[in-house]
Amino acid sequence: MNHGSSNTQANKLTGQEVAKHNNAEDCWVIIHGRAYDVTEFLPEHPGGPKIILKYAGKDGTEQYEPIHPPDTLDKYLDKSKHLGEVDMNTVEKEEKEEDPEEIERQERIQRMPILEQCYNLMDFEAVARRVMKKTAWAYYSSGADDEMTMRENHSAFHKIWFRPRILQDVENIDTSTTMLGSKVSIPFYVTATALGKLGNPEGEVVLTRGARKHNVIQMIPTLASCSFDEIVDAKEGDQVQWLQLYVNKNRDITKRIVEHAESRGCKGLFITVDAPQLGRREKDMRSKFSDVGSNVQDTGGDNVDRSQGAARAISSFIDPALSWKDIPWFKSITKMPIILKGVQRVEDVIRAVSVGCDGVVLSNHGGRQLDFARSGVEVLAEVMPELRRLGLQDKIEVYIDGGIRRATDIIKALCLGAKGVGIGRPFLFAMSAYGLPGVDRAMQLLKDEMEMNMRLIGCNTIDQLGPEFVDTRGLSMHSTGVPSDTLALDAYDPLAGPREKARL
Amino acid sequence: MNHGSSNTQANKLTGQEVAKHNNAEDCWVIIHGRAYDVTEFLPEHPGGPKIILKYAGKDGTEQYEPIHPPDTLDKYLDKSKHLGEVDMNTVEKEEKEEDPEEIERQERIQRMPILEQCYNLMDFEAVARRVMKKTAWAYYSSGADDEMTMRENHSAFHKIWFRPRILQDVENIDTSTTMLGSKVSIPFYVTATALGKLGNPEGEVVLTRGARKHNVIQMIPTLASCSFDEIVDAKEGDQVQWLQLYVNKNRDITKRIVEHAESRGCKGLFITVDAPQLGRREKDMRSKFSDVGSNVQDTGGDNVDRSQGAARAISSFIDPALSWKDIPWFKSITKMPIILKGVQRVEDVIRAVSVGCDGVVLSNHGGRQLDFARSGVEVLAEVMPELRRLGLQDKIEVYIDGGIRRATDIIKALCLGAKGVGIGRPFLFAMSAYGLPGVDRAMQLLKDEMEMNMRLIGCNTIDQLGPEFVDTRGLSMHSTGVPSDTLALDAYDPLAGPREKARL
Amino acid sequence: MNHGSSNTQANKLTGQEVAKHNNAEDCWVIIHGRAYDVTEFLPEHPGGPKIILKYAGKDGTEQYEPIHPPDTLDKYLDKSKHLGEVDMNTVEKEEKEEDPEEIERQERIQRMPILEQCYNLMDFEAVARRVMKKTAWAYYSSGADDEMTMRENHSAFHKIWFRPRILQDVENIDTSTTMLGSKVSIPFYVTATALGKLGNPEGEVVLTRGARKHNVIQMIPTLASCSFDEIVDAKEGDQVQWLQLYVNKNRDITKRIVEHAESRGCKGLFITVDAPQLGRREKDMRSKFSDVGSNVQDTGGDNVDRSQGAARAISSFIDPALSWKDIPWFKSITKMPIILKGVQRVEDVIRAVSVGCDGVVLSNHGGRQLDFARSGVEVLAEVMPELRRLGLQDKIEVYIDGGIRRATDIIKALCLGAKGVGIGRPFLFAMSAYGLPGVDRAMQLLKDEMEMNMRLIGCNTIDQLGPEFVDTRGLSMHSTGVPSDTLALDAYDPLAGPREKARL
Amino acid sequence: MNHGSSNTQANKLTGQEVAKHNNAEDCWVIIHGRAYDVTEFLPEHPGGPKIILKYAGKDGTEQYEPIHPPDTLDKYLDKSKHLGEVDMNTVEKEEKEEDPEEIERQERIQRMPILEQCYNLMDFEAVARRVMKKTAWAYYSSGADDEMTMRENHSAFHKIWFRPRILQDVENIDTSTTMLGSKVSIPFYVTATALGKLGNPEGEVVLTRGARKHNVIQMIPTLASCSFDEIVDAKEGDQVQWLQLYVNKNRDITKRIVEHAESRGCKGLFITVDAPQLGRREKDMRSKFSDVGSNVQDTGGDNVDRSQGAARAISSFIDPALSWKDIPWFKSITKMPIILKGVQRVEDVIRAVSVGCDGVVLSNHGGRQLDFARSGVEVLAEVMPELRRLGLQDKIEVYIDGGIRRATDIIKALCLGAKGVGIGRPFLFAMSAYGLPGVDRAMQLLKDEMEMNMRLIGCNTIDQLGPEFVDTRGLSMHSTGVPSDTLALDAYDPLAGPREKARL
Repeated sequence: MNHGSSNTQANKLTGQEVAKHNNAEDCWVIIHGRAYDVTEFLPEHPGGPKIILKYAGKDGTEQYEPIHPPDTLDKYLDKSKHLGEVDMNTVEKEEKEEDPEEIERQERIQRMPILEQCYNLMDFEAVARRVMKKTAWAYYSSGADDEMTMRENHSAFHKIWFRPRILQDVENIDTSTTMLGSKVSIPFYVTATALGKLGNPEGEVVLTRGARKHNVIQMIPTLASCSFDEIVDAKEGDQVQWLQLYVNKNRDITKRIVEHAESRGCKGLFITVDAPQLGRREKDMRSKFSDVGSNVQDTGGDNVDRSQGAARAISSFIDPALSWKDIPWFKSITKMPIILKGVQRVEDVIRAVSVGCDGVVLSNHGGRQLDFARSGVEVLAEVMPELRRLGLQDKIEVYIDGGIRRATDIIKALCLGAKGVGIGRPFLFAMSAYGLPGVDRAMQLLKDEMEMNMRLIGCNTIDQLGPEFVDTRGLSMHSTGVPSDTLALDAYDPLAGPREKARL
Repeated sequence: MNHGSSNTQANKLTGQEVAKHNNAEDCWVIIHGRAYDVTEFLPEHPGGPKIILKYAGKDGTEQYEPIHPPDTLDKYLDKSKHLGEVDMNTVEKEEKEEDPEEIERQERIQRMPILEQCYNLMDFEAVARRVMKKTAWAYYSSGADDEMTMRENHSAFHKIWFRPRILQDVENIDTSTTMLGSKVSIPFYVTATALGKLGNPEGEVVLTRGARKHNVIQMIPTLASCSFDEIVDAKEGDQVQWLQLYVNKNRDITKRIVEHAESRGCKGLFITVDAPQLGRREKDMRSKFSDVGSNVQDTGGDNVDRSQGAARAISSFIDPALSWKDIPWFKSITKMPIILKGVQRVEDVIRAVSVGCDGVVLSNHGGRQLDFARSGVEVLAEVMPELRRLGLQDKIEVYIDGGIRRATDIIKALCLGAKGVGIGRPFLFAMSAYGLPGVDRAMQLLKDEMEMNMRLIGCNTIDQLGPEFVDTRGLSMHSTGVPSDTLALDAYDPLAGPREKARL
Repeated sequence: MNHGSSNTQANKLTGQEVAKHNNAEDCWVIIHGRAYDVTEFLPEHPGGPKIILKYAGKDGTEQYEPIHPPDTLDKYLDKSKHLGEVDMNTVEKEEKEEDPEEIERQERIQRMPILEQCYNLMDFEAVARRVMKKTAWAYYSSGADDEMTMRENHSAFHKIWFRPRILQDVENIDTSTTMLGSKVSIPFYVTATALGKLGNPEGEVVLTRGARKHNVIQMIPTLASCSFDEIVDAKEGDQVQWLQLYVNKNRDITKRIVEHAESRGCKGLFITVDAPQLGRREKDMRSKFSDVGSNVQDTGGDNVDRSQGAARAISSFIDPALSWKDIPWFKSITKMPIILKGVQRVEDVIRAVSVGCDGVVLSNHGGRQLDFARSGVEVLAEVMPELRRLGLQDKIEVYIDGGIRRATDIIKALCLGAKGVGIGRPFLFAMSAYGLPGVDRAMQLLKDEMEMNMRLIGCNTIDQLGPEFVDTRGLSMHSTGVPSDTLALDAYDPLAGPREKARL
Repeated sequence: MNHGSSNTQANKLTGQEVAKHNNAEDCWVIIHGRAYDVTEFLPEHPGGPKIILKYAGKDGTEQYEPIHPPDTLDKYLDKSKHLGEVDMNTVEKEEKEEDPEEIERQERIQRMPILEQCYNLMDFEAVARRVMKKTAWAYYSSGADDEMTMRENHSAFHKIWFRPRILQDVENIDTSTTMLGSKVSIPFYVTATALGKLGNPEGEVVLTRGARKHNVIQMIPTLASCSFDEIVDAKEGDQVQWLQLYVNKNRDITKRIVEHAESRGCKGLFITVDAPQLGRREKDMRSKFSDVGSNVQDTGGDNVDRSQGAARAISSFIDPALSWKDIPWFKSITKMPIILKGVQRVEDVIRAVSVGCDGVVLSNHGGRQLDFARSGVEVLAEVMPELRRLGLQDKIEVYIDGGIRRATDIIKALCLGAKGVGIGRPFLFAMSAYGLPGVDRAMQLLKDEMEMNMRLIGCNTIDQLGPEFVDTRGLSMHSTGVPSDTLALDAYDPLAGPREKARL
């Protein structure tokens, strides 16, 4: 019927044949040893046509792999465009130019610190920054606009100080707690982050294994590099997973995803509500620049380049019309607890209670969406007293994520009333730099810190933590502790006194 | 009758003839191929005689061009001093010395980033700083005294954080609004800035074209490099323009300007009230230094050099006696709405209402006048609650300008009650670095940011924005977030511990 | 009976013999010319077995000396494992590789500033940082986690400003006061710090001599390098000493220590209550790294390296179960006044009064335990008004330590109600850089500053100091004055504007 | 009778003869061509004996000159020790070693910016720092301890922002006012600063001439390099001078000074009350170091070096017993208005009113005495409302000094209620770098700024200024805007992430 099926296995396509279809009017690409006719798909590609045309008539597997889950082509490209296998021996190997940046990166990898030199979660970030591919680093590390919220997320914890108590018998410390009814060893979970294969060829399953080992929950991302089933298959025993959901414009797809997740045993449905459109992350966009063939002549008019980094490329399906009206429908299609991820003010927490949600995550999406959104922990300090005032504190579980790097950060959040905290980037960085051993050590370091700091604050168990152990008087002052405005400082021409005459 | 008219076209002046008049007692200069006798004018020149004497007997067009509108000589030099055309072939070309700074600048221009590498308004400033002529950069970028207010203008926005709402259907975003009755696509206007030809040979008309394309209003400056009519002629269709007015000591001139503007279709009269005298901008003054032939011996006594940068050179006509008493007169000569530009405290906003003004711009002149004036957005946060308390919020339109670089800045201002915001320098920098495509992209970037951030804050239209979306608790704290005191840091001799002995 | 006793003096062990026992299954080491069989002790060694195995079959004295008090082997290793003397002439001298770091350090020592160039306590730290061995510096200078509390301890004083009075006759200044009934010349004491021999071969007795000279009290640390008796023996005349106590899991040992201290004349028992587990000090841990033979392959699983710097190596005996219930027992075994060291909130000060304690030290252990614990001086400003409100201000003596570097710091603490302040690290740094003359000069500098600043604040005697002399309005704002987050800044990838094309 | 008188003019001493008396037991020095026997004076020398012994048997004029007023030897050394003239031809010229620092300084002087490049008062400091002798710079520029107060003095103004009014007729600006009844052209005076000859060979009379030219008042310092009469002789016409007084332990000397000042026409007596002992200025002390012959061996014990910079050397006569009880006596010996200089809290201002003082200067001695004393302008903001509450605002004139660098600073102080401000260091720096023309330009710059900023704030005259023009909400927050702790930052060892392995 179609080109693809007319090529028998014995009659594989040759590289030469594919190479003829190398332009916008006739564009084939090879992915994982099979050819696809993407000519008609070009204008619909969320990442824009340019990036595909770079591989027109060629093998694009390496670039394609980390940002497309395995089932992408089946889902989005009509079977008639699947052209069948290619005899890869006939495909010309592209002579890669020696990329001086890549050579330097390989040198840095040779000299990278050994894992035991990482003593805290920040250390993994410092290492990852040096050993990751530039584009992968840019995707993981970037935030919205001036990255104020991204940095404030961590800085906010520095405005909270402790009021520890002494002379408690703290020989035995128990950091276990429950989240949505599941027992965990320590009150953090691995929150959903996209495109795990940018950091590690195995992708998100590495995090599954780490979470298993430390008995913490993993939240499976919609935009994983691995397929959902791969990630569920990687769990062991009674390991608990949750599902993070970007709601599709097509609710049938959403329904299918939710029902499948529930059938595979997911114990919580976290609906992302802070991303009707994925944010502009300029560091990410900037890193893509070298791939864009444009130049200054063609930038006027409507031919403006639309390729805006990995985030945009993968998110065009997200429904910006999602609203409170949809919540009852979600309750009708699943028995999983429903949690809104990305709530940012107390009014919406109260509304979440009233529509029957089981939880909220006070989150700004790791500072990747709206810049100058406040940190989760600051919103938490506003939310909990109001919930208590209204007697609603037990009607809903409140989580936060964003900026957590130390067990002291976790303890601060718990003192203020959080049920637990989500941690994302640090585990990605640990995985990118050191694989599973990195994730393992990162989690172990948190556990070590947690046990020690529970002792030092004078509490044996999680339920002993409370607001009397923290001093939050500095938390609301946004005039200060504001992260530095690095872009503006880069642009500003500082005043200076009179200059000397030049030396002769 | 006069020297000028006695030279027929066939009988042009020669360069040699002009060259004889090369001193303070007898000074001719050539501008645009015509000679002028400026001997008597020398002491009256607002920029001081020195700069003219540098070109005595020579062609001064290049230096003259960007800071004098085309009709300057007709307006200010008696016709009897217009000596007529010069045969430019007979004028000795000045062998320009190779200026090492200019050579380096040309190299930087070769390597300048392509337009698509600019992802936000700050980026244009970073590029412009490197590719603009030093004096032009100094004029545009400088602020008063320690540039505290100039920088605070932007920093103030960083003290305002968001309280976004979630789960609103934000599929459709409409950023359009009205300003003084005119419909615009987004709530910013191009505010008036002087001397556009310093940045681009075409001057302010480039901004006219950019504004047209994006359907925003342009405010025409009194101190434009282009003539007023050139800027009006450049508009298309029903494009809206406003007039910014420095009030002349001679009210007849002012009346003529206002009436002419109204007759040419201007839709608003913005009277500048924060500049009875143009500010000291030391970065600008410092950049002029190399042109001054003075030295340390002649600085005592009254012979102090008075050349104080471009600002002073062009502003001596401004009337420092302008006062509230003049407002009725303005209302008597025009039907255009009258807006006071440069209001800086709530008492004066209320007074503006009481004298029948249609609007105010809370502005400190881009930080170029009184240093330590507060930012427009801070004043706004003080003004609007008081107007509401008095029931005056609908009696006047309140605008702000200064420091706006991001759509989030615009949204913050609108949440606090502004009708719109003025943006000046960023478009100048975009124009200086990349011409019209730069202005176009700058505006498009703001629109992209605006649409996205409206979504992320959970609002579909401008009228949904309100104070409940912002947290301004940090805004009034001037003890902090104060821009760094770069001059003082440059001068301060920091303490240090004991020094080691020298190596042998 | 045992190996050791079977070797007569005439029949010393030889180096060759010892060298055979060089592995984990059979491990001998030489310390101070005597051999010990530590095979069975290896798994129990608080510092982990690795560090011992490095010296298996060899002489480990140099490494052993500074971190083990002289009586350690007698106390902790069964006599049967003491193998007797070794003929040191037969022990192969280890050819030390030239360590380039050590060579540089020796050069820095050659060029170190002379003592008179130190004008304040901070100066000693600057010198010590350059001349101390890296591991010793790391142990003394490090704090918990991000060292926020460590630095806040000093910064907090910078949030307190003076309100001096004028025109007092300040010819005669008397800075003497009493602490727990003992007269001292100035209201500071030398607080307990561990491992003095890391800084000076003589160890803590140097501080004893300095304290004597300046008539201030020394608090003897449990974890001294010198033995308790050596330190007591070093005192002269009626010199006063206190005992700092880490409470042992074995209360018999604790009882023996307390009774012995009282019998040797100690005048105060300071029970450390902020260290149920010794803190993670990453700078200290990092400095140990080069000694660890591990590599990235063996870090997964449970083989995680547990060697965590000097602090952990010496503290495993501390009882984390110590609680308020133990206080009556302490009162039953000693007549010394009992002071809780490490109290961190007002509720616990009140409880200390109620259980009959004689004093508290508001302290966070020099920022070495719980990061983000508040500074002693901030807690003091919270404690004293509450004590006065309850009429308890005379029931207990309140001390603080942490961050004191200037006499102005001491005066601020006394104005706020402290009876005195403890100073630790500065004297260690002075001792490490310059020995006893350094300690002497450090104390003299404090005295000179104290006399002058008493004059300048307008007070003749300590009892005139009071809260009316200080302005503490800035003290509670933790949003600001927060020490910079150096780790995060090291890891953060700052935003920058568009980059130029490369030069060709 | 004595050695001196027995040497006739014809019978001058020879260099050889003087050179024999070159040790502590027999010490002669030559000053201005005359020999003096200072053997017995050595132990009494306020600057310590060491510095004199350096010149034992030699000519010490160059070192002596700037820090001793001309009449010092007559006043302090008994006539019997005046040995008479020396035949300077016989004195061996000391071959000065080429001092590399001095050579570099001379080079910097060659390249120093011309005067017109100084656009503000800070600029003079930047130039002076590079062209002054190190010791002179250190004496002028240094402050107490960590120089926190010195820097806070200027920073405090940055916490005050303006609320300008618009549309005032500001054509005519009059900045004149009166101080203690004298008319001045602008509300600042030249405050007293010591040792003017360190900066300029003519010393304080340069300031007299500058003050005359600009019609401002000069306060004559007790510790001038010029004699009091030289400074009074330098005034012209009805020029006004005040006297700054350090009160001598010997009240007869004080009385003589006061009466003499009054008789010479001084119009105000400013009694310094913030300096019972002159402060420790470590930058000054450090700069003296190279002159001290001591070394590390002799620093133990009581032989501690006591030479502590210029400040201590010249101030031992100051009476620390001066108190409120002395004020009536001052009122009895002079009719000059009496002003207390160095008041630092509102209670003492009220007391000054009650004892009949005519004014106070809210001052902390330029940050040279008690570190962490608050800035004058902050104290002013506390004082004036309280005076108004008590109805005392017209009973006393309130001045401030410290940190004033801009006309905006002056205006802020006047808005808050000051009668005028004192400016010291900036004129010293202008004088040191450029002599009288520098002082002239510095004053003219202030006048230019003042006129412009009066216009921009919307006030024509000084009496229109009031608290409604300033926003001081940030002024009391000492947790922020605190100058950086440069010494501590110099000593602190910042945390850093894991380090890479070394390159091979």
